[in-house]
Amino acid sequence: MSVEELFSRQKLMSLFGATLARVAPGEVDILLPYCEDLAQQTGALHAGTVAAIADTAAGLAALSMMEPDSGVVSVEFKVNLLAPAIGTTFLAKGRVVRAGRTISVCTADVIADGKTLVATMLATMMRRAPRS
Amino acid sequence: MSVEELFSRQKLMSLFGATLARVAPGEVDILLPYCEDLAQQTGALHAGTVAAIADTAAGLAALSMMEPDSGVVSVEFKVNLLAPAIGTTFLAKGRVVRAGRTISVCTADVIADGKTLVATMLATMMRRAPRS
Amino acid sequence: MSVEELFSRQKLMSLFGATLARVAPGEVDILLPYCEDLAQQTGALHAGTVAAIADTAAGLAALSMMEPDSGVVSVEFKVNLLAPAIGTTFLAKGRVVRAGRTISVCTADVIADGKTLVATMLATMMRRAPRS
Amino acid sequence: MSVEELFSRQKLMSLFGATLARVAPGEVDILLPYCEDLAQQTGALHAGTVAAIADTAAGLAALSMMEPDSGVVSVEFKVNLLAPAIGTTFLAKGRVVRAGRTISVCTADVIADGKTLVATMLATMMRRAPRS
Repeated sequence: MSVEELFSRQKLMSLFGATLARVAPGEVDILLPYCEDLAQQTGALHAGTVAAIADTAAGLAALSMMEPDSGVVSVEFKVNLLAPAIGTTFLAKGRVVRAGRTISVCTADVIADGKTLVATMLATMMRRAPRS
Repeated sequence: MSVEELFSRQKLMSLFGATLARVAPGEVDILLPYCEDLAQQTGALHAGTVAAIADTAAGLAALSMMEPDSGVVSVEFKVNLLAPAIGTTFLAKGRVVRAGRTISVCTADVIADGKTLVATMLATMMRRAPRS
Repeated sequence: MSVEELFSRQKLMSLFGATLARVAPGEVDILLPYCEDLAQQTGALHAGTVAAIADTAAGLAALSMMEPDSGVVSVEFKVNLLAPAIGTTFLAKGRVVRAGRTISVCTADVIADGKTLVATMLATMMRRAPRS
Repeated sequence: MSVEELFSRQKLMSLFGATLARVAPGEVDILLPYCEDLAQQTGALHAGTVAAIADTAAGLAALSMMEPDSGVVSVEFKVNLLAPAIGTTFLAKGRVVRAGRTISVCTADVIADGKTLVATMLATMMRRAPRS
């Protein structure tokens, strides 16, 4: 499945209003405009919202390096919340650190308004073989 | 802020349709009925959805052990996705492992339909002093 | 390779003076007597020492559930240091949370002097097929 | 305490034969020559050895940005093992991602023989006030 096709099938990303901003080998960026419905008690984005776009960007970055028709699942991820996720737009930048045949390791930074690093993720992704 | 009050102010939890299922000292459970809008490409819940309810349950469990009027923020969390998050209802069970004055460490298990462990989280939470 | 055999081949564990304290399906405990050489600046065990015995216990617990002749490697682990690792003996208790064909997820708690939880780990282990 | 002084008091680093290779604001590199005693069953460095030098580099990088006389403790770290830690020398490069008053977030890459990335860590460090 292509990065674009897989992204378009993720209903959570539609619910969030997130879009694919950039797709290159090993690099996928996801753009999220701020929306009050995605916030926690202070009005900043919920850590779960931040994790969701970071995980998606990381997983799609991994997928972009796999053989055609692969699928991808998250094995695990770890995210540090570095600053309150306050801003108008958020960019989650997924990058492949090591592309393996089965297991890929990725990072994802989430940046508010093009300047503030609000979170950084280190994730393990696994290739799924295409269904025959 | 009480666990109930903080939870009610998290708009992401309202968007998800999640509710507080249990509040006890050091233990908070959050219930999420399945909703297609929260899914990834296969129809299972998105890892970000799973992380969001687990993070909320863990953070509120930490809050439940803090002095009155404290707030809580997530420093970081790590989640392993153990099985596809398929089911009708999901329970995120946040538990405090170590309650500290500033830093608390919590786990959260996410269980589908009362039987399948679909994810487990290990998280670090930080107390926020009440605004004076 | 058996748990006992693999453990005996880990020279780091010999250097540390660690021993296998318990082996059961999905459960492996490693015992480490305190030694000043394994400390950080305050005299408590170094976080790296704590992580090493926790990782070993978790990996061997995973191995204990795999088919005979498997090997095991650590994909990743995350450890929270909960209290200063001060004591006479330390027990790292590795437990399998989910045993998969390729990927297993484990926890490991490190307990000082039978009473203080000093660290908790959440780890991902991968089976290695036997060399033919 | 200075980075150099704190490092010199870590007996585990002496036991390992590790040295400080570089100290700059927010950046600390630690050099470890290969030693069979630090290996796991295959002869590659044990994941615990890799984690220990990465944690030390990350913690000292955090310390390098703190006010004089601070101490530092590891709150938690997560490490992905990317390739077998095989080589003659290993460099753990600790870098500060976000320097906070209390909590700092750091990464550490471990590189074998100047070319192979064998592990990457994402860590949370906490400042300790000087004893008065």
